[in-house]
Amino acid sequence: MYSIITHLYKVAKAGTLAILQIILRRGLGQKAKKMLLLCLMKDIKNILAEASVGSAITAKGWVRTKRETKNAIFIELNDGSSFNGLQCVFDAHGLSKENAAALSRSNTGAALSVSGTLIDSPASGQAVELKADSVTVIGECPADSYPLQKKAHSLEFLREIAHLRPRTNTIGAAARMRDEMAYAVHSFFHERGFRYIHTPIITASDCEGAGEMFQVTNLDLDALVKSGQPADYAKDFFGKKAYLSVSGQLNVECYALALGKVYTFGPTFRAENSNTTRHLAEFWMIEPEFSFAELPDNMALAEEFIKYLFGWAMERCGEDLAFFDKRVQPGLIAMLEEVKNKKFAHMSYTDAVKELEKKSSSFEFKPYWGCDLQSEHERYLTESVIGGPVIVTDYPKELKAFYMRLNEDGKTVRAMDVLVPRIGEIIGGSEREYRYDVLLENIKAKGLDPEPYWWYLELRKFGSAPHSGFGLGFERLLRYVTGLENIRDVIPFPRAVKQAEF
Amino acid sequence: MYSIITHLYKVAKAGTLAILQIILRRGLGQKAKKMLLLCLMKDIKNILAEASVGSAITAKGWVRTKRETKNAIFIELNDGSSFNGLQCVFDAHGLSKENAAALSRSNTGAALSVSGTLIDSPASGQAVELKADSVTVIGECPADSYPLQKKAHSLEFLREIAHLRPRTNTIGAAARMRDEMAYAVHSFFHERGFRYIHTPIITASDCEGAGEMFQVTNLDLDALVKSGQPADYAKDFFGKKAYLSVSGQLNVECYALALGKVYTFGPTFRAENSNTTRHLAEFWMIEPEFSFAELPDNMALAEEFIKYLFGWAMERCGEDLAFFDKRVQPGLIAMLEEVKNKKFAHMSYTDAVKELEKKSSSFEFKPYWGCDLQSEHERYLTESVIGGPVIVTDYPKELKAFYMRLNEDGKTVRAMDVLVPRIGEIIGGSEREYRYDVLLENIKAKGLDPEPYWWYLELRKFGSAPHSGFGLGFERLLRYVTGLENIRDVIPFPRAVKQAEF
Repeated sequence: MYSIITHLYKVAKAGTLAILQIILRRGLGQKAKKMLLLCLMKDIKNILAEASVGSAITAKGWVRTKRETKNAIFIELNDGSSFNGLQCVFDAHGLSKENAAALSRSNTGAALSVSGTLIDSPASGQAVELKADSVTVIGECPADSYPLQKKAHSLEFLREIAHLRPRTNTIGAAARMRDEMAYAVHSFFHERGFRYIHTPIITASDCEGAGEMFQVTNLDLDALVKSGQPADYAKDFFGKKAYLSVSGQLNVECYALALGKVYTFGPTFRAENSNTTRHLAEFWMIEPEFSFAELPDNMALAEEFIKYLFGWAMERCGEDLAFFDKRVQPGLIAMLEEVKNKKFAHMSYTDAVKELEKKSSSFEFKPYWGCDLQSEHERYLTESVIGGPVIVTDYPKELKAFYMRLNEDGKTVRAMDVLVPRIGEIIGGSEREYRYDVLLENIKAKGLDPEPYWWYLELRKFGSAPHSGFGLGFERLLRYVTGLENIRDVIPFPRAVKQAEF
Repeated sequence: MYSIITHLYKVAKAGTLAILQIILRRGLGQKAKKMLLLCLMKDIKNILAEASVGSAITAKGWVRTKRETKNAIFIELNDGSSFNGLQCVFDAHGLSKENAAALSRSNTGAALSVSGTLIDSPASGQAVELKADSVTVIGECPADSYPLQKKAHSLEFLREIAHLRPRTNTIGAAARMRDEMAYAVHSFFHERGFRYIHTPIITASDCEGAGEMFQVTNLDLDALVKSGQPADYAKDFFGKKAYLSVSGQLNVECYALALGKVYTFGPTFRAENSNTTRHLAEFWMIEPEFSFAELPDNMALAEEFIKYLFGWAMERCGEDLAFFDKRVQPGLIAMLEEVKNKKFAHMSYTDAVKELEKKSSSFEFKPYWGCDLQSEHERYLTESVIGGPVIVTDYPKELKAFYMRLNEDGKTVRAMDVLVPRIGEIIGGSEREYRYDVLLENIKAKGLDPEPYWWYLELRKFGSAPHSGFGLGFERLLRYVTGLENIRDVIPFPRAVKQAEF
């Protein structure tokens, strides 16, 4: 039986519902009929998209709203597959006793199975609705204790019920867009021959994030305290002190110099004591890295990437994006459209500072050559000077990491920051220093011990080649495409200072 | 200039190399010419696939082998984009001084840029080769210190140079297959409307992995020891004791009961002191979870998933798979083909034990109803009893986790393990207990404190519904599709007991 079901299930998924219904009408045993009915169950997203009026349908989902008029009872059933739910309409007059009893238990949040016939909807905003014949309550939802009622809840409140909040319009839409954007990331790189590399999460080198890294241990801390002796990391799980990685870049460079074009997309960690709307202790980063690629290649890739992602959002996240545009960030779609269509401007750090100096007095932090660009500077450059996305390049070496390629001037490095209106920096990257001697010099000049970098240095000893890459914080991207202000609303279960619930 | 380059780059990527070459032949400045030449640079994979004989080509990559005959010098250039490299042939007689000097420095591992014309190859196994006009050494590779020489190296040795090993045939192929399989995972779920959910890595509940979880902290352990006081986790970063997650399942269930169909794919951690070829401290897990789905739906999904992944490997990883079939695991492709084409058998645990008892004496561990199936039992079931993949269901509740749905017999749960020849269990899953009272009972029966599960329990209070899911260890899958025995060879930088190098 399973094989038939599996096969029919596939067929049903492909949209040929009608065939199944013919089969169903033929004389079949009760058990077979029940199983075939299961096959007829489609996501509400598909039911709405196909709009095959006249079809017998069973939909399962959760009650978003229930309202009654004199003649009808309306239930909006949502199964999370799309923003919009399926309107289920019951004739108030001909209700069976069973249906009446079930409807009385169908509170907001209850899980239902509703069967009926799909008809053209007289209501605006929906092509079809379900003329319901029968309803079964799968899981009740007590109105007196369910925290999500019809009324709008604050995002702050929703964070306290992170296990239930994806059932709301806002968080549900954010989760669907997160899924779409993640798939867009993989598709972009896959289409271009970039290989996905899982760089390690646990690392024994505290290369980049000195002081802001989480320690990972399986030492018994109570026993450690009792011993009165300093921790002996030779006895820890990894035989040395271990941390959570802040970036996969150094590791993925090994693969760029072997497979050519690669990227990482995984969680990274920072023990930063910042309780803001922009910081998380655990967040996901995308880091492409490619060989035989210099700064202009890197800039071109970053521009293409952003445009691809925004294009994907506009093409595939219509309903969710429309919601955000309407309710969260008016003008959102127009802004994405603009970034997607505009050629990204290019500007050196030196030229950028010259522009900023013209408006020096209007900034909280006075700009000067050598200063780290603040958010207010970045936004002024992209919003006022350029009026669109801009890639700022060639920063003073003192401002940037040791691995960036030193320019011929000896003062600047081949770094790039991609700035976009409303948030400023969205991408940071660079061409990497691929010359052994210069890299070693840079490491020392930053006051770092070269020893832990032995393998990173060796990449420059054996078949070194120019290579470049950048990092895009996935949640920063999501804040941009959803318009949501607080980073904790674009990740399912946010981790931050004093926050690791659920 | 950048915009033209960017545009041409895209065009070149799309394969219309010829147009670029026409443009190139027209009178252009030196700088423009140089930049356009960069555009002409394609991955060796594409060069080999397009095989456009007569084209002027510049290829960049690393020397795999160099050999000389009286009349010619052959360099196999590999850029990691594919298993096969590009054969570059230099006329030994007409060598310019520059080319001769460059070739003398082109040791194994050196990064080169080689330009010339693509011609039909007289050699077998390749359609085209590059009649080389010029060669430049981008990065040398000193023969006396480079650890990767022409000869084959042991996989043990390669693990010690994890930063260089993706340059080898075996690890390069494994990395490309890992990339393809990851993309296949996302594509499978995306096509079926499953949403990708990033469940948290850091967790404050040690729900499942009691005793085998890594602790995450930013307490200063030296200061802690000096204080002589037990750790005060209220002062730790998260305000409580925190761990690395062993599974995203409990979290992703929240999303299944909101969005309907979801999955996780992320790193999970186990501080297990097992130094075997099958264990890692850090590994990637795939965990789908879907609502309104019972055990048969789960079984159908698992079968479809495995077949999809194996089909993808056979369709998209031809060269790499052929290498593994030839050099690592003879019969590999035939075995994947067989699993892909066979209907998965179904068998209850009770029936499985009956089968095992018939052969009781041949096992190291004597089977009996209630025993945990050992690897030898699983392999016997799939290899000898069934002769193909089999899904074993309905295990004794004592053997399985608290969240599995209790059957009507009160003794077994709706668990399933998918067994395949050669390795035994590849997938484990279940229908989840969706009834509040029964779940609470199960938690207590396992001796667990219900309090930390408050939110998990609440999912059963508010609109609960039958739902199911399973877990597939990504590295276990990769061991299966590559034939590689040791799990440390299918992940870029393995983390295990006493091992966190690089």
